[in-house]
Amino acid sequence: MGPPVDSEPRQLRQLTKAESLQLLTEVSFGRVIFTQNTMPAVRPVNHIIDDVAVIFRTHLGAAVLTTIGMIVTYQADAIDPDSHLGWSVILHGYAHAITDPDTVARYEQLLRPWVRGEMTHVIRIYPEIVTGFELVKDE
Amino acid sequence: MGPPVDSEPRQLRQLTKAESLQLLTEVSFGRVIFTQNTMPAVRPVNHIIDDVAVIFRTHLGAAVLTTIGMIVTYQADAIDPDSHLGWSVILHGYAHAITDPDTVARYEQLLRPWVRGEMTHVIRIYPEIVTGFELVKDE
Repeated sequence: MGPPVDSEPRQLRQLTKAESLQLLTEVSFGRVIFTQNTMPAVRPVNHIIDDVAVIFRTHLGAAVLTTIGMIVTYQADAIDPDSHLGWSVILHGYAHAITDPDTVARYEQLLRPWVRGEMTHVIRIYPEIVTGFELVKDE
Repeated sequence: MGPPVDSEPRQLRQLTKAESLQLLTEVSFGRVIFTQNTMPAVRPVNHIIDDVAVIFRTHLGAAVLTTIGMIVTYQADAIDPDSHLGWSVILHGYAHAITDPDTVARYEQLLRPWVRGEMTHVIRIYPEIVTGFELVKDE
């Protein structure tokens, strides 16, 4: 057994926009959150960050394609279930379908889907609003 | 360096409702997804599962309190960013505020917040619709 984990409730510290965007680049996976037939919906996806935009790929017929041109929310986190330390970042922005063939080809090279299947669409979310928090130990 | 990680795209296997609910009990943390002023919103919370319901605590003034009596979505996952193996579970159900003092007291004992601060409310989401998938290796 390792040393006992200190898992007291943590202080919540708000992150700046710059800190939040930096943390997003450190993970490869998040969740697209949108409204589908008036119901809150969520889809996990793997992403890359290009400049500050979230890029992900999806397939024909995916529910998330109904969000193109709409505001969606993207969330990623890395919170340790034992120590309760970590962070969460949430951003809001318009879902934009990338159609320029060269840009699509570049993203297809950079962004390999984790799930088998033909990923026909590349979606970009440019972050209009960014919030984040960190769970930190007391000083 | 360890052995190379096999991170090919994975097969997506649909989980049954029973499998999905079982997996939810194996994690202590998920995300409440709801609509806030017409915008898709998400809040990470730590949870317990009681029977099949998701129980979490929150504080006065939390955005998530606006969802009481409404359908919300809850999502949890455990996906390895290196192997791309894991699972995601999504459920939909009404957000119900627990008010019975004995039940509140019991949940306050069982469910310790990860974040400092007075958690005045106990919310239950009974899963009306449950879906899940698993990312698995090919046979």
